[in-house]
Amino acid sequence: MTLPRYAYLGPSGTFTEAALLAMVDPSEVEAVPAIDVLTALAAVRDGDVDYAVVAIENTVEGGVTATLDTLAAGAPLVILGEVVLPVSFELVARPGTAIEDVTAVAAHSHGLAQCRRWLADRLPGAVHVSATSNAAAAGELAQGATGFEAALAPPGLGARLGLEVLAAGVADNAHAATRFVKVGRPTAVPAPTGADKTTLVVHLPDDRAGALLEMLEQFAARGVNLSRIESRPRSDRPGEYSFSIDALGHIDEPRMAEALMGLRRTNPVVTFLGSYPAATGYPTPITPGTSAEDFSEARAWVQGLRSGRH
Amino acid sequence: MTLPRYAYLGPSGTFTEAALLAMVDPSEVEAVPAIDVLTALAAVRDGDVDYAVVAIENTVEGGVTATLDTLAAGAPLVILGEVVLPVSFELVARPGTAIEDVTAVAAHSHGLAQCRRWLADRLPGAVHVSATSNAAAAGELAQGATGFEAALAPPGLGARLGLEVLAAGVADNAHAATRFVKVGRPTAVPAPTGADKTTLVVHLPDDRAGALLEMLEQFAARGVNLSRIESRPRSDRPGEYSFSIDALGHIDEPRMAEALMGLRRTNPVVTFLGSYPAATGYPTPITPGTSAEDFSEARAWVQGLRSGRH
Amino acid sequence: MTLPRYAYLGPSGTFTEAALLAMVDPSEVEAVPAIDVLTALAAVRDGDVDYAVVAIENTVEGGVTATLDTLAAGAPLVILGEVVLPVSFELVARPGTAIEDVTAVAAHSHGLAQCRRWLADRLPGAVHVSATSNAAAAGELAQGATGFEAALAPPGLGARLGLEVLAAGVADNAHAATRFVKVGRPTAVPAPTGADKTTLVVHLPDDRAGALLEMLEQFAARGVNLSRIESRPRSDRPGEYSFSIDALGHIDEPRMAEALMGLRRTNPVVTFLGSYPAATGYPTPITPGTSAEDFSEARAWVQGLRSGRH
Amino acid sequence: MTLPRYAYLGPSGTFTEAALLAMVDPSEVEAVPAIDVLTALAAVRDGDVDYAVVAIENTVEGGVTATLDTLAAGAPLVILGEVVLPVSFELVARPGTAIEDVTAVAAHSHGLAQCRRWLADRLPGAVHVSATSNAAAAGELAQGATGFEAALAPPGLGARLGLEVLAAGVADNAHAATRFVKVGRPTAVPAPTGADKTTLVVHLPDDRAGALLEMLEQFAARGVNLSRIESRPRSDRPGEYSFSIDALGHIDEPRMAEALMGLRRTNPVVTFLGSYPAATGYPTPITPGTSAEDFSEARAWVQGLRSGRH
Repeated sequence: MTLPRYAYLGPSGTFTEAALLAMVDPSEVEAVPAIDVLTALAAVRDGDVDYAVVAIENTVEGGVTATLDTLAAGAPLVILGEVVLPVSFELVARPGTAIEDVTAVAAHSHGLAQCRRWLADRLPGAVHVSATSNAAAAGELAQGATGFEAALAPPGLGARLGLEVLAAGVADNAHAATRFVKVGRPTAVPAPTGADKTTLVVHLPDDRAGALLEMLEQFAARGVNLSRIESRPRSDRPGEYSFSIDALGHIDEPRMAEALMGLRRTNPVVTFLGSYPAATGYPTPITPGTSAEDFSEARAWVQGLRSGRH
Repeated sequence: MTLPRYAYLGPSGTFTEAALLAMVDPSEVEAVPAIDVLTALAAVRDGDVDYAVVAIENTVEGGVTATLDTLAAGAPLVILGEVVLPVSFELVARPGTAIEDVTAVAAHSHGLAQCRRWLADRLPGAVHVSATSNAAAAGELAQGATGFEAALAPPGLGARLGLEVLAAGVADNAHAATRFVKVGRPTAVPAPTGADKTTLVVHLPDDRAGALLEMLEQFAARGVNLSRIESRPRSDRPGEYSFSIDALGHIDEPRMAEALMGLRRTNPVVTFLGSYPAATGYPTPITPGTSAEDFSEARAWVQGLRSGRH
Repeated sequence: MTLPRYAYLGPSGTFTEAALLAMVDPSEVEAVPAIDVLTALAAVRDGDVDYAVVAIENTVEGGVTATLDTLAAGAPLVILGEVVLPVSFELVARPGTAIEDVTAVAAHSHGLAQCRRWLADRLPGAVHVSATSNAAAAGELAQGATGFEAALAPPGLGARLGLEVLAAGVADNAHAATRFVKVGRPTAVPAPTGADKTTLVVHLPDDRAGALLEMLEQFAARGVNLSRIESRPRSDRPGEYSFSIDALGHIDEPRMAEALMGLRRTNPVVTFLGSYPAATGYPTPITPGTSAEDFSEARAWVQGLRSGRH
Repeated sequence: MTLPRYAYLGPSGTFTEAALLAMVDPSEVEAVPAIDVLTALAAVRDGDVDYAVVAIENTVEGGVTATLDTLAAGAPLVILGEVVLPVSFELVARPGTAIEDVTAVAAHSHGLAQCRRWLADRLPGAVHVSATSNAAAAGELAQGATGFEAALAPPGLGARLGLEVLAAGVADNAHAATRFVKVGRPTAVPAPTGADKTTLVVHLPDDRAGALLEMLEQFAARGVNLSRIESRPRSDRPGEYSFSIDALGHIDEPRMAEALMGLRRTNPVVTFLGSYPAATGYPTPITPGTSAEDFSEARAWVQGLRSGRH
């Protein structure tokens, strides 16, 4: 039997691998490390793997911009699911090292940045050593590296490498989190769960002050809320913008379907990047007048009027 | 064979009768004069007549407010057609009367008001005599009334009564016009012509500054233009308002149907008063992205996305 | 001493006279009856009178359209106050007449229309006689007219004419009311009371679906509510519209002043027809963030930012 | 004399240093390398340096998210200027190396990602070696590193290190660019140039579908265009969002000042991050009715109305 193949930002030990493991049973998939997000997504497009797991928002490992732009350009890809992980490191060291012994800490520069205040408080004299990845820093430590006594590692990696955890929950911002998505080639959309997101890219027809408002009215007129919007300068048309959007709801729901139709009709490009269960699990808020029943009732009413039934 | 019966604001000779004659061949209908607009509309509701022709906008004979309110309250009625007539009188007198002989002019007070400047210019010394209707003034003149030598009459009435026309095209405002509608009981809506109007009454959910905006966004999101909007204080709920609206387009067109559905879903009361050919005959302006084809294409696109076709 | 002169729609006994008496002490003014609303307003413009009292909304005596159009065109006029009177008649007759004796009832056709259901219930067999005005019908009755035994008259008129009141509070709709305004030549605006209205006429820059929305956003962006909006076909430009608007608030309040400025900047014509105490006396609702203090605080904040104070 | 001190993302040789050099004459400043964006901004807040130059949009070196979040939180900082640099590398090697000799290329992982397709085309067999920074890769090469024969370096760095340029203009996307800003402590805002940007962070009052629309209406009602908008999950309030916005125009211009006042009044938090010359140099588009003269004229009009001048 062939296991489904998942590309992820490697090497083993990254936060992205942790996201992958939060989504699937590792015994049921073949995990394929990729050097970067673009390579992971290209592997899906090329059919080398079935899926990729990539960071898409608020990441400590970069790549968000690349993810959004790469998803929207090229052969169609869709998001099939998401998971949100807290940004939290473990300070790891070789067995026998005490926290007082640490004079230098290694990590990817983003990891060091995320823990800057913690390090200043707890290891005020320690030198910061920038590594090519957090996993690489921990791996070199396990193999006897001598330039530093400790590393910041994603939770669990230290234990797998035989290192000791000097401190857990290391992070400057207890609420910081990274959002990861599972991406695949388009197939039938996953069934709605009642707590879904729909991800889109929209190019506006022009850059008037009112054009963005009119685009958002297509959502508001159907009571669809957004959970994310980002303008992106269009590399193909300097001075113009596209908008990357997460909207709450599922394409199978009438209010989202009608909003999508409205966007499609009135904007030059609308790229659908999937409807999928939201990581929060919170049911989509339904404004009065926007439930599936409200749409059915309104449609039946118009049908009746056309036949003279008032 | 039974002719269709049409109620109109009588007596014979009113502008409303002229509107009726502009809509139908008089040999094919039975015209039934009514004392006022409410009576005419009640006769349709009661089945005493098949249709009524009533003034609905910018009238010289009053009744607009009554028309709008009466259409919206009670058993359903729908507008089936409209005609717009210029507001223009003839100054009529008994044969042999010269304009210099006129010392008093009779008409309904609204008719006098519409021609005030003309009368001041051309008959500066003449007394104005208020009659119960323009037709009554002309009729009394034909029958030998002595209190006035001339009357303001709708075009054609003088000739029918054996009076002479001293001046035609009498009006202070050369562009003033009255809009009349043909009203019936609900049946299948008349087929779209490409130059149609849809008349509605909408009650807003609340009186926030934004509620009117949100109601109008239901039209704007589908590119539907309005040709008339009037707030009307709700007699049943002091301090609240309903809105009487003419929108350009037909309920059989997707953009109007979707706008109606949106209104229905998000407002407590939406009363449909008909889709019918616009008197202007100007084709409905179609904003890019709002044609029937645009709606079909967008619907097919969403259907495709649901099955994984991008 | 010269008393201020007030024109009103005469003759004595009209609802408009009742409105005038509700606004001023009759011993302190000189009341000048006018044949119609246009004449009354022209008298103000010409300086023949100081003020006019005219019906502006939902009237039983017609003239609303004329009032709105005439206010907006010609030498500037402003509204200085308003009063709202219930639409309610008295059924009056000569002394000794019992309601059972009434076989015919006279009134202006609008008055008959307003009481049609009441008459059908209480005087089912009576003939309706259309008079040139309600006051005229009652006057003729007092002078011995023989074609009818009763008349519908504004409250109080019967008593002044020596007639008996057979029934009071006659009206089909217990909530119906007419709004009257006091109009004068522009001077300093009356001081704000906290419960004011501002009346405007606005011509839109074009007839796109979005142009009306953008005009209303000028109000919404400052939290200003509307209590009335009516589109009016422009007689000078067929196919274009002007909007007659009552907004809640006073031009001396920052949020109304800023909304007016916004309208002025973005529309070809904005005519200010006055800020004046609202008849309801209800304090203007103040949306959070739109009080005079909020405007002051925001202005000071921007001034501080310009100097580097954050 | 003391030179102004500028922090930047070091070490020497980064794109951020190139941005700094594009903004100032290096002989007139003291450039202070920082380990990351947070450290650079903290140095401004602490007074250790006068200014920082940091990437803020579309960067190849990460840190955008950190920049936006860090600017908005903590002691006030403002943006004083911006520069946009193309994303373009040089492939550098030790003198005597031919491009055919290259079996391994080193760079920061983001640099490798930005040039992935170029490398696949031109150096299809070469191994990619991830370094801690682009500058570090080039530096190690200059010092005789043996694991790779070439490095991707920001333009000019190779020459300074005595390396040869094997290829210039290396980039997958010829239009890709990074935006850098100069940040300082608040002082008087730089004078308007007619081609300015204003950067803001806004927290919405609630998460209704309409709240974002209402916020954007504050801009649209004054004709202010946006060049960037990004929602950012609020780490302090999960499920709520703030919006990072670049608007075209300057706080000294009436239309921007009034928009800022409107935002301030109607949203719980508005953080002003500066008005400064836009890198494009394109004059701000001025919608009809939104020039400074239009604001002055409208203000004078309202003042006149208050005194009875129409």
